[in-house]
Amino acid sequence: MKHKSDTPQPFDATIVPRFAQVGTFMRCPLRTSAAGIDIAMAGVPWDAGTPNRTGSRHGPAQIREMSRLLRRYNFATRVSPFDDCAIADLGDAPINPFDVLATLASVQRFFAEICSASALPLAVGGDHLITLPVLRTVGRQRPVGLIHFDAHADTMDTLFGQRYHSGSPLRRAVEEGVLDPARAVSIGLRGTQFSADDTAFNRAHGMTVVTIEDFFEAGPKAVAGRAREVVGEGPVYVTFDVDVLDPVYAPGTGGLEPGGPSMRDCQVMLRALDGLDIVGADVNEVSPPLDTSGLTALHACNIIFELLCIMASALRARRSA
Amino acid sequence: MKHKSDTPQPFDATIVPRFAQVGTFMRCPLRTSAAGIDIAMAGVPWDAGTPNRTGSRHGPAQIREMSRLLRRYNFATRVSPFDDCAIADLGDAPINPFDVLATLASVQRFFAEICSASALPLAVGGDHLITLPVLRTVGRQRPVGLIHFDAHADTMDTLFGQRYHSGSPLRRAVEEGVLDPARAVSIGLRGTQFSADDTAFNRAHGMTVVTIEDFFEAGPKAVAGRAREVVGEGPVYVTFDVDVLDPVYAPGTGGLEPGGPSMRDCQVMLRALDGLDIVGADVNEVSPPLDTSGLTALHACNIIFELLCIMASALRARRSA
Amino acid sequence: MKHKSDTPQPFDATIVPRFAQVGTFMRCPLRTSAAGIDIAMAGVPWDAGTPNRTGSRHGPAQIREMSRLLRRYNFATRVSPFDDCAIADLGDAPINPFDVLATLASVQRFFAEICSASALPLAVGGDHLITLPVLRTVGRQRPVGLIHFDAHADTMDTLFGQRYHSGSPLRRAVEEGVLDPARAVSIGLRGTQFSADDTAFNRAHGMTVVTIEDFFEAGPKAVAGRAREVVGEGPVYVTFDVDVLDPVYAPGTGGLEPGGPSMRDCQVMLRALDGLDIVGADVNEVSPPLDTSGLTALHACNIIFELLCIMASALRARRSA
Amino acid sequence: MKHKSDTPQPFDATIVPRFAQVGTFMRCPLRTSAAGIDIAMAGVPWDAGTPNRTGSRHGPAQIREMSRLLRRYNFATRVSPFDDCAIADLGDAPINPFDVLATLASVQRFFAEICSASALPLAVGGDHLITLPVLRTVGRQRPVGLIHFDAHADTMDTLFGQRYHSGSPLRRAVEEGVLDPARAVSIGLRGTQFSADDTAFNRAHGMTVVTIEDFFEAGPKAVAGRAREVVGEGPVYVTFDVDVLDPVYAPGTGGLEPGGPSMRDCQVMLRALDGLDIVGADVNEVSPPLDTSGLTALHACNIIFELLCIMASALRARRSA
Amino acid sequence: MKHKSDTPQPFDATIVPRFAQVGTFMRCPLRTSAAGIDIAMAGVPWDAGTPNRTGSRHGPAQIREMSRLLRRYNFATRVSPFDDCAIADLGDAPINPFDVLATLASVQRFFAEICSASALPLAVGGDHLITLPVLRTVGRQRPVGLIHFDAHADTMDTLFGQRYHSGSPLRRAVEEGVLDPARAVSIGLRGTQFSADDTAFNRAHGMTVVTIEDFFEAGPKAVAGRAREVVGEGPVYVTFDVDVLDPVYAPGTGGLEPGGPSMRDCQVMLRALDGLDIVGADVNEVSPPLDTSGLTALHACNIIFELLCIMASALRARRSA
Amino acid sequence: MKHKSDTPQPFDATIVPRFAQVGTFMRCPLRTSAAGIDIAMAGVPWDAGTPNRTGSRHGPAQIREMSRLLRRYNFATRVSPFDDCAIADLGDAPINPFDVLATLASVQRFFAEICSASALPLAVGGDHLITLPVLRTVGRQRPVGLIHFDAHADTMDTLFGQRYHSGSPLRRAVEEGVLDPARAVSIGLRGTQFSADDTAFNRAHGMTVVTIEDFFEAGPKAVAGRAREVVGEGPVYVTFDVDVLDPVYAPGTGGLEPGGPSMRDCQVMLRALDGLDIVGADVNEVSPPLDTSGLTALHACNIIFELLCIMASALRARRSA
Repeated sequence: MKHKSDTPQPFDATIVPRFAQVGTFMRCPLRTSAAGIDIAMAGVPWDAGTPNRTGSRHGPAQIREMSRLLRRYNFATRVSPFDDCAIADLGDAPINPFDVLATLASVQRFFAEICSASALPLAVGGDHLITLPVLRTVGRQRPVGLIHFDAHADTMDTLFGQRYHSGSPLRRAVEEGVLDPARAVSIGLRGTQFSADDTAFNRAHGMTVVTIEDFFEAGPKAVAGRAREVVGEGPVYVTFDVDVLDPVYAPGTGGLEPGGPSMRDCQVMLRALDGLDIVGADVNEVSPPLDTSGLTALHACNIIFELLCIMASALRARRSA
Repeated sequence: MKHKSDTPQPFDATIVPRFAQVGTFMRCPLRTSAAGIDIAMAGVPWDAGTPNRTGSRHGPAQIREMSRLLRRYNFATRVSPFDDCAIADLGDAPINPFDVLATLASVQRFFAEICSASALPLAVGGDHLITLPVLRTVGRQRPVGLIHFDAHADTMDTLFGQRYHSGSPLRRAVEEGVLDPARAVSIGLRGTQFSADDTAFNRAHGMTVVTIEDFFEAGPKAVAGRAREVVGEGPVYVTFDVDVLDPVYAPGTGGLEPGGPSMRDCQVMLRALDGLDIVGADVNEVSPPLDTSGLTALHACNIIFELLCIMASALRARRSA
Repeated sequence: MKHKSDTPQPFDATIVPRFAQVGTFMRCPLRTSAAGIDIAMAGVPWDAGTPNRTGSRHGPAQIREMSRLLRRYNFATRVSPFDDCAIADLGDAPINPFDVLATLASVQRFFAEICSASALPLAVGGDHLITLPVLRTVGRQRPVGLIHFDAHADTMDTLFGQRYHSGSPLRRAVEEGVLDPARAVSIGLRGTQFSADDTAFNRAHGMTVVTIEDFFEAGPKAVAGRAREVVGEGPVYVTFDVDVLDPVYAPGTGGLEPGGPSMRDCQVMLRALDGLDIVGADVNEVSPPLDTSGLTALHACNIIFELLCIMASALRARRSA
Repeated sequence: MKHKSDTPQPFDATIVPRFAQVGTFMRCPLRTSAAGIDIAMAGVPWDAGTPNRTGSRHGPAQIREMSRLLRRYNFATRVSPFDDCAIADLGDAPINPFDVLATLASVQRFFAEICSASALPLAVGGDHLITLPVLRTVGRQRPVGLIHFDAHADTMDTLFGQRYHSGSPLRRAVEEGVLDPARAVSIGLRGTQFSADDTAFNRAHGMTVVTIEDFFEAGPKAVAGRAREVVGEGPVYVTFDVDVLDPVYAPGTGGLEPGGPSMRDCQVMLRALDGLDIVGADVNEVSPPLDTSGLTALHACNIIFELLCIMASALRARRSA
Repeated sequence: MKHKSDTPQPFDATIVPRFAQVGTFMRCPLRTSAAGIDIAMAGVPWDAGTPNRTGSRHGPAQIREMSRLLRRYNFATRVSPFDDCAIADLGDAPINPFDVLATLASVQRFFAEICSASALPLAVGGDHLITLPVLRTVGRQRPVGLIHFDAHADTMDTLFGQRYHSGSPLRRAVEEGVLDPARAVSIGLRGTQFSADDTAFNRAHGMTVVTIEDFFEAGPKAVAGRAREVVGEGPVYVTFDVDVLDPVYAPGTGGLEPGGPSMRDCQVMLRALDGLDIVGADVNEVSPPLDTSGLTALHACNIIFELLCIMASALRARRSA
Repeated sequence: MKHKSDTPQPFDATIVPRFAQVGTFMRCPLRTSAAGIDIAMAGVPWDAGTPNRTGSRHGPAQIREMSRLLRRYNFATRVSPFDDCAIADLGDAPINPFDVLATLASVQRFFAEICSASALPLAVGGDHLITLPVLRTVGRQRPVGLIHFDAHADTMDTLFGQRYHSGSPLRRAVEEGVLDPARAVSIGLRGTQFSADDTAFNRAHGMTVVTIEDFFEAGPKAVAGRAREVVGEGPVYVTFDVDVLDPVYAPGTGGLEPGGPSMRDCQVMLRALDGLDIVGADVNEVSPPLDTSGLTALHACNIIFELLCIMASALRARRSA
């Protein structure tokens, strides 16, 4: 049961109980540099792009705490991302709670350093606008493909006069050329919407939309297959807005849209993405003040764990390539 | 994204943020008369018919607040009930927290005025007894058909010596001739029951029962089809007791019966009722003091939205007929 | 027990139970204009000036709901503000959740209209920055005196590069000449602070500070007396940040500083302000997502009630003058 | 540390941990008859007299559970009521959740049996109307004196047309001649009230009122002394509405009136009643659905413990007399 | 609707409301001996074997309270376990919160007395280690078969140097020869695990494992069928760890593993076990301090009810055999 | 407002918002060695000595998170402990959740290393037994004086056969000669107790007891003066059990005893200890699963801050001596 490894390792839960020691993501070591790290988890505690219910600025802190509950092996696949990858918590990206543009810039710089060190970024929000600066980093040289789990399209234009908000990151990323719309798929869209067609931009730019109706008709495995077709070969980014989950799984988020997929559905979809060339990922929109049960953070942690597993798999594939 | 209309409209969420202004149902205008209104939402804040866990007297207040989260378009159907129907919040029906008979009478008078103005009533409880005075109104001239979502049959006779309580509305409605038992269907019955057969009255009067076993065997679409067969042509009333939902979707209600349908199941069923001649509806049994997570009110709001959509559809059909 | 009056009146709790009807401030009528109104309560649902824990944008909504619990007479003084004053809920001031300057301007215009109609404004926040646009209105012609209940001085300069935030309203108001520092008193300051002297600006400008040490030494009556001395004759504004209360009374606010006054202490102080020439008031910093017990909103409502009583008294004095 | 006694004893917390075994009041034995019992604790799970926020029907259940936390000795006085008194839990009085008059009758019969067995009743509500049937029992032969802790006078007449409700028990008891108004004192009155003078009946009938202003001026010991003067010699009943406590001590009750006494204040007052000829007592208005923190039930249990101590003292005095 | 019976019966919910009287399991009579009892429910309030999040020592108390919600008939099967079985609450087994070995011994003795009286034990935990002393009792003469619902294998060896903990009961039971590994099946395993193979012991000893992947592929009915094959003829024990449920159904337990079966799935599986020769059962790992919504206890109560139904069925079969 | 210092400093809240970065005690740097550190804060996440309500094993984690709210200057004294002392978070002491003796030994070794590095320990529990191994360290060479804030005497002997539990640390420390009973004072004792005299050991050994009656009679300043007299010159340890606070300030702890001091009272007492030769301190018994409001952790953080202030003062005095 011991894990001998030269890479940084999470606390061993059979020696240091899970309730002990300072809470870092997955109880991994806290590092100030991504040098020598394969996957760099980092928080982006920022929610000033949220038009209604805020609080996701506290997301990284609560997710770190809740991740104490996790152990190191994935029962479904019997592997551990920590076995042959160096995984660390890089702390939080610098942000300014009052300044959107300054924050977009500082977060982008922070993740650029991670990418320079050849580590894959796994960002933890924060609201969904935080995806934009990460995409700017991973898509700088070549627009990336995207698998986007969300109840909303996030391709709105301005809202209350603001171009950069939690409902617009994908539109901005397409406009900026860091996201390839032909290789982008959004899964789980539903609910009430602002306009008669909140996905007009998506269709106009050839982004694929899997509505919740499509999802329940096809099932999670087929939807994952469809996503793989859309992104094809080449670098892919995965962004997971916890509001894609049915509200009973993620009550602690700003935009609650009943009738979504279960956590099981999402686990099945994420595991079916194994083998893709994943270059980064994020989980966002956990709002601790709204998450009195803690279930939202719990599920976010487990999504992060699944992302670590497929990112580690991508790294292994790259090494052996 | 602007909605120019002569009819009363909800606050535009792109101008007035959803957290702003006084909370009315769906952020619609508050009116004191149903004149010129197509669908009149109204609260019935009353729970003195509840034998065990009360609190639904506070239901209308909390549901109004939670309905802030909704926007105006149904993603699944791309239409909005507000586009061509005049929808308003009529406030609450007058009630007496200590007097069952006086309340039944005053609530009936309140909804009779709404019906006189040719508006369709959408009542928000309160406990399930509030369905009786509304049925008395819509079924006064001709007994109506009924689609009844509930974990319980609500056809008990007296309880603690009282004829009018939250477990007896449908029995009383049949006895009073305002509900046509041959055109009535109850969906989702389950749980532990008081007697060996809590549906004896239903069978004796030819009311259709779709137990939870039937439901899970047939699935939501087939069950909705069965409901359509039962009610056939003619006026139909829809009553939705939130305890039909599995308790994880509706923890804040008096009678919790595990193993029920999901919110998605109910959305599918309600949308499949489109085209029926709906003459009124209600949603009831949300008990805010028991709903610490707010999920029950959230789901009630979304059920109300689906009801508005199919009621608007019925109105459109009537106009074009 | 009936209240015959030509002025707008709250719902009579012996006829319309307190849980019934749409929730407005103190269950008063909702008006769209201040014409004919003596005291205009209005929400300012805005918290984008908050550097740490947000959520007070939802404050007006929750406070309206919680104010259902109040009745119309003050037991301590046997009078009711509703008896000879016309009091209404004016809804919420228009705000932009993403734009500080635009919001400061639109809120100022909103309250300017109220003042033009000769109504006294009673603003309900929102974070403490909302005091600034109201002060700009009531202090436009002559800088007003101020009685300021708070755990913090709120005279910081920039924070994260921003001049307008919830820690700076009083500094800005002094700089802009709408607040007379010689007639300003801050009561209840305490806690941990950012710098070795967070009250440097106050002393430099002759603003009076009653620290929590002073408060507990002198007691609430003497402190109220000291406040009266400071403001003297002339127009006075009262601003009440709920974080002045000990956290057990106001757990639902962003900045919790243990060791504060009790609600009783604050009631005693406010009642002792009777007779001052109050030209406006606000209550702010109730953050519903942090107020799971509801106690913060409860106490805010009762503070509002005390403010209504002393504002009504000021109006009566002016009439008879 | 062992307590050898022939009388029924609570579980010994050094042998049976406090979290173990079925929850009875103070972990005392459950009895079906008061024969041989000195003090009979019994629940009255009934709240149909409550005009606004209900839930106290669940009070006895939660108070039993919370009373697990208590041990057997009073640190302040070093004595235990269980040492020489036989104290038991008599279960709940029979009630009908829909029928006020039937419940008043059945509760009265239940307590009459207890009194017939020469046991002192300690009733646990339930709403405050439950005091009436107990007073009818203990005051049947001679009107009793009363020490009444409450934020409200509870001497209203009809409300919503109902004579028997939680705001009228003391008026009814005076009218029925079971309560001697000249020997009745109400302590802690405050808050907003329905009418300009909610204590008119009290004054008209010579009942003593200690307002919260009086209380804070005199302090708890002097107030207890005043209460002793009012009731003088002769039988006294103590009724404790938990809403007398400041809401931070009793958030889980229907009528919250800020600015009340602390728990310490109430402990001091109750202990200062030692030596009175107490013939019965009750604690009421704990509403578990509103008591999410459990503090209300916690304080109710400790009030019950103090009542047991002074009732045991009265019994000892009677025996030695 | 009346239930005339010589056997002990739960309170009749049409006479004694469900919120009334002391809370026992299923509102059944509290007995101090199992003589004449067919099924003996008993608590084991003990959690000192829990390595991370404790609190299940309070499980029996909360489950008793929550079981008030249940009525006497199973809607799915129209039968009641109380109709021809004598079912009682035997209180709690004696435990020592600080001493594992002493507790294992005293709990074993307690259940041995129940078995000696020919009653079937239904134990309510407490953490999962409490299964061991019950298995020692029912498997003393012949190792029993086992149907084990759990997210974890519970066949770890020592943890923190301790042999007896909540992750080891089944390993110890196999080693001690009271559990027949060839007739044992574990259903629902999933999540993150301590080691690369937390089921090594299971496979080594021929215990059957139905992982969550197997479960979702086959469905609940087929899984129940598989379980019946594994246990075959002969005595069977059923142990239900509430963490087998998806966390939205059982948030109040120590080890939360997302992606589990629904309550409906578990009801279907349990009902499909009807006809087995069940000799005992337990439900465990409900931790009230972690169960702020009460859903975990609610579901535990309903699982207990299903277990009572199949145990009553086994008893009827044995009588008629 | 910038704090240039060679010593380790907390994150500057005007640059790194308080919700950002990994949560350490007071946002101080995390160190693995006490070399060069003046005050070493460290968690002891252990509660296996708790006889009733556990959960304080999670205390250090929650207190770290809640300490984000604090800033660096004490408003009452205008000084900051961070200005001239090196203060760090040393992580958690190693513990074994199943083994009392092993944990006592490993915790003692952990703190011995801190003391060897000439740092003052500030331990954060965990239950109150954790005080024993720290006392063994600081009192090894000479028995220390003690100022003990608590509702309970903590001088019980065995409980459930166990010598080392959360009710016995002070008795053991006196017996072991590491605590000087003549220089020990316990403040705040009250509530219900196990035996007629839970302070017998204290009196027998000359330990001073300030009961809650004494406290309210003398007031916090006089009590602090009495404490200073008792401990006199020489090394003093301060142990603060949060249950000394009235339960409204510390609802999240195992043993709730109504009628205690306020947070203000405790701040006044702690500040009045300035100048004593403090050699260590601890805060204990915060149980996060019981602290749903977070108030207990909030107050614990602020107590820790006051302790840091007086420990820094002691260090300054020593340096200048």
